[in-house]
Amino acid sequence: MQQIKNISIVGFGLVGRAMAAYFQSKGLEIRQILVRKKPIESTPFNFITQIELLEPCDLLLVCVNDDALFDLIPKLPKSQWITYTSGAIGLDVFGNAPHVSVFYPLQSFAFLREDAMAQIPILIETQSIEQLPVLKNFALEYFDTCNEMDSASRAKLHLAAVFANNFTNHMMTLATDYCQVNQLDFSLLKPLVLETAHKWMQKDANELQTGPAIRGDEKVLEKQMISLKGSMLDIYQTMTKAIQEYYKNK
Amino acid sequence: MQQIKNISIVGFGLVGRAMAAYFQSKGLEIRQILVRKKPIESTPFNFITQIELLEPCDLLLVCVNDDALFDLIPKLPKSQWITYTSGAIGLDVFGNAPHVSVFYPLQSFAFLREDAMAQIPILIETQSIEQLPVLKNFALEYFDTCNEMDSASRAKLHLAAVFANNFTNHMMTLATDYCQVNQLDFSLLKPLVLETAHKWMQKDANELQTGPAIRGDEKVLEKQMISLKGSMLDIYQTMTKAIQEYYKNK
Repeated sequence: MQQIKNISIVGFGLVGRAMAAYFQSKGLEIRQILVRKKPIESTPFNFITQIELLEPCDLLLVCVNDDALFDLIPKLPKSQWITYTSGAIGLDVFGNAPHVSVFYPLQSFAFLREDAMAQIPILIETQSIEQLPVLKNFALEYFDTCNEMDSASRAKLHLAAVFANNFTNHMMTLATDYCQVNQLDFSLLKPLVLETAHKWMQKDANELQTGPAIRGDEKVLEKQMISLKGSMLDIYQTMTKAIQEYYKNK
Repeated sequence: MQQIKNISIVGFGLVGRAMAAYFQSKGLEIRQILVRKKPIESTPFNFITQIELLEPCDLLLVCVNDDALFDLIPKLPKSQWITYTSGAIGLDVFGNAPHVSVFYPLQSFAFLREDAMAQIPILIETQSIEQLPVLKNFALEYFDTCNEMDSASRAKLHLAAVFANNFTNHMMTLATDYCQVNQLDFSLLKPLVLETAHKWMQKDANELQTGPAIRGDEKVLEKQMISLKGSMLDIYQTMTKAIQEYYKNK
């Protein structure tokens, strides 16, 4: 079976940087990094700014945002095995292009701790059946978990992540701002938040639900609603209704 | 200054149990535990079921739910220093009752790890100025953090916790169920969720926001909305609007 002994990378944003640093630290040869503009800081990498300068490599890892991906993929050499890191874009977008595959690291890379890299679940998809074991072996050489997942399932998992990560994060933003406006120390909530996250690793969240909505504590619900306005009020009402409906028949 | 050398507890639910076990493990004398009905399991505690059998103690820790609290407090001896563990109920509810105070552990006790107990922030409030340092010293003997906080601020912090804990938990419930219905392995999302929670300890959540709403990725937003219905659709729309309004002018 073919083995991936070297890669090149396209993009040096959050994902490209993290991948380059991680693979490099693990001893993988990184031939070139294609970017629009070379970074000013000193790095150990060989940057190029023109597609024409790309040399063949075992795998070209494309770490650009979704919009750039549409334009870029058709411009890359068809003789080159390409894999991109986007979770939201289905392989069908690029038509019958067997040289294109997916290597989706299911993680948010902003301020990611370096020692969290190995635990990132890698979701892969290929159009050629021969590529699948090669890509899987490659992933498992550097990451603990690699699953094959088709574009439709990946899109659904991405939607679950919107709820589990993006929406929870905005809840935290609103709680943080509310504390600040009311001169309360948000850090008092941190042990609660961190413990709850650890519980999510062990238990189904629906076993952990607490608060006035599930208790049906109308006095507190009304008092809290009166004190809110704007987005926070909308969210309070929507979430309270959702929680009460969810547990109505349980 | 008076020192609290022994306590009794009212209630043996999640909070009462955790407090009894923790204080006992730290060597504090627990005289009696007043309950409606003695637990069947064997415990090292001295249970009573009638208020009249309560003996005087340095501090009576009342760990009952909010509804029971209203009925119970007036029935307890006025000569006894009482402190209750509810965050939502203001001291004003009990009128001018200097023997009543608040000892609010800001944590959710369901499935709480034992070694998380010491990190629970304790929020205290007393009506007598002499009690304040006594209660504070007592709290700090067993817990890392103790802050004085009045009922109005405590109610606001409780509201922030509804967003930071109760609503985020329901998001996780919806994400879990969505994965289950679609035969996706929710555990693939766990490293993402846990890392994000660790980031919340270090960074303001608004620096971490990602996802289609903040990117203004209309294609993905529309596709995701079409695939949802019921509560999940309501929440998706409310949260997307809230996120887009929040970052509009940033």
